[in-house]
Amino acid sequence: MSQYINKRVGSLTPYVPGEQPVERKYIKLNTNESPYPPSPGVMKAVLEEVERLQLYSDPECKALTAKAAKVFGVAEDEILMTNGSDEILNFAFMAYGDEITPFVFPEITYGFYPVFADLNQIPYRTIPLEDDFSIDPTKYYQAGGNVVIANPNAPTGLTLSLTQIEGILQNNPNHIVVIDEAYVDFGGETCLPLIHKYSNLLITRTFSKSYSLAGARLGFGIGNRELIADLNTVKFSTNPYNVNRMTMAAGKAALEENDYYMNHCSDIMATREFTRRELISRGFTVTDSKANFLFAKHPEVDGETLYLQLKEQGILIRHFNTAIIRDYNRITIGTVEQMKAFLEAVDFILEQRKDA
Amino acid sequence: MSQYINKRVGSLTPYVPGEQPVERKYIKLNTNESPYPPSPGVMKAVLEEVERLQLYSDPECKALTAKAAKVFGVAEDEILMTNGSDEILNFAFMAYGDEITPFVFPEITYGFYPVFADLNQIPYRTIPLEDDFSIDPTKYYQAGGNVVIANPNAPTGLTLSLTQIEGILQNNPNHIVVIDEAYVDFGGETCLPLIHKYSNLLITRTFSKSYSLAGARLGFGIGNRELIADLNTVKFSTNPYNVNRMTMAAGKAALEENDYYMNHCSDIMATREFTRRELISRGFTVTDSKANFLFAKHPEVDGETLYLQLKEQGILIRHFNTAIIRDYNRITIGTVEQMKAFLEAVDFILEQRKDA
Repeated sequence: MSQYINKRVGSLTPYVPGEQPVERKYIKLNTNESPYPPSPGVMKAVLEEVERLQLYSDPECKALTAKAAKVFGVAEDEILMTNGSDEILNFAFMAYGDEITPFVFPEITYGFYPVFADLNQIPYRTIPLEDDFSIDPTKYYQAGGNVVIANPNAPTGLTLSLTQIEGILQNNPNHIVVIDEAYVDFGGETCLPLIHKYSNLLITRTFSKSYSLAGARLGFGIGNRELIADLNTVKFSTNPYNVNRMTMAAGKAALEENDYYMNHCSDIMATREFTRRELISRGFTVTDSKANFLFAKHPEVDGETLYLQLKEQGILIRHFNTAIIRDYNRITIGTVEQMKAFLEAVDFILEQRKDA
Repeated sequence: MSQYINKRVGSLTPYVPGEQPVERKYIKLNTNESPYPPSPGVMKAVLEEVERLQLYSDPECKALTAKAAKVFGVAEDEILMTNGSDEILNFAFMAYGDEITPFVFPEITYGFYPVFADLNQIPYRTIPLEDDFSIDPTKYYQAGGNVVIANPNAPTGLTLSLTQIEGILQNNPNHIVVIDEAYVDFGGETCLPLIHKYSNLLITRTFSKSYSLAGARLGFGIGNRELIADLNTVKFSTNPYNVNRMTMAAGKAALEENDYYMNHCSDIMATREFTRRELISRGFTVTDSKANFLFAKHPEVDGETLYLQLKEQGILIRHFNTAIIRDYNRITIGTVEQMKAFLEAVDFILEQRKDA
């Protein structure tokens, strides 16, 4: 840290991304990536753009936005494309919080929300999960600030119903409610039908999970046109060319082959249910996750030990060193083969314990 | 604008990017892009990454940073890669300004600096250019805040020498001096040799101009490791995966074919001098630009008229509707053929005037 840094940044605790190992080849079940590569059209679309890379990308992302509007059934001015969904989330914090208008979110959720609040010098308030890790929507009524809820939530995978979210929207008419739908394609219920009914609803989405494009960095927000206009003001005051040509082309091509991705989501959901049953049969407690990951604990092996022993065996899962969830691990759903390898490694660890 | 927007964003005047026309095919001399496509290795490198797009990009940008460190002769922890140079500039505003520490920059310069200041709620002070559009470095001594200077400056193309910049650095020991070297490869003098001598020097660069990668969105900052650590705190609190896989690969491949780009910079400089002479011979006043653009006015045709009449003829240049430079236009240097077409169109406009 330099002597020149200001108080705002000098006091930040940055987000810590999941491990991205480079030395050793792991079965990577730690950052909720898709185990499936992008569809064939993506490569073709990207290739065409490489020849035009000397030209700036379209700051309005017109072609991609038009395609996305069709796929998601909204108008073009109800979508804003961003450099990953972290960017649209940050834009929302920038536009809607201030020193007297906090953000309110669950105590256990995506770890970036408090970082965005601190970054933007916005106070925040967290609400504990219920004992079963579920979210009680009534605790977000009259929240006294903007609400952000991941649905499904991470790392629990648990969902709220549309009716429950409507309750939150109706009971916070003077504040924004951000529903982070990063994982919605794996069995959650989307709030898309509500954007015209509630002027305070902003939905954030990503191409990182269900569209196999984590490495391309593409996210977006959906809301009524006034909200999207707000967020465009942030974008054009921050980084007008925030999405590059290749990513725009990749995203559009992916949406043109939507079935490929939705079929893979079904595969992942089936593999999740298979893995869940297998873990339960081994004595694990496993939440009813509707995301592309499971959240599980074993009665005898603590979370960190399991994480470390799996890592030794070449399998990466995610452990969070947070009191309430320390016994648990988040396990991304890979292919059936990867999950079988994971289960074998778990068996090996459990066997070794018995022998010891 | 929605009813929910906060004062911070509600009062912003966003940056207005240059036109990116989609309907008509123009000779595009309006946004300082390179007329040359990326080198062959870029396509190959991008293609390899497409197969891995389901995986997150390396948040530390290790491979690209290592290559850039070698090319620019600095250590790996003295570089930070960003989503275009707009992002590293914004990071600098975020990290170093506050309500009592303004940013100071020329009255006529890159139009995004005041936007970044407003976005981050930092006061700013502008210093008028001299009558010949040059910057008097002594006016930035004891600036009472952080300084940002584009060198070469835009849209004038005029440069400061290293000695002049050292004067600014020495006379602002308690504040950061950002030197925006977006255009340095076209004949300016880089401050790279100064980064270990001055702890308050941050250099920003981009792949958009000299590396033919405007559409890939890649920029970076170079400074001593304490400054880069500050800016990494901002990055990891904003968007840890800010640079996508394809762009990282493209940037690294471009640096591996550095000669290709530096040769094209020489071509562009030669074409600039040719175009400059031709404009002067037609009665234009033209600044001594060391960038990939010229800044020129005609004694009889006002700037906006020339811009509009060239547009009618299918040639886009950039006009700024700012009092002091209203008579001028900024003309990006394209290929020799493009500049000849531009000059012919200028001749046509000047002829028409005589006939009228």
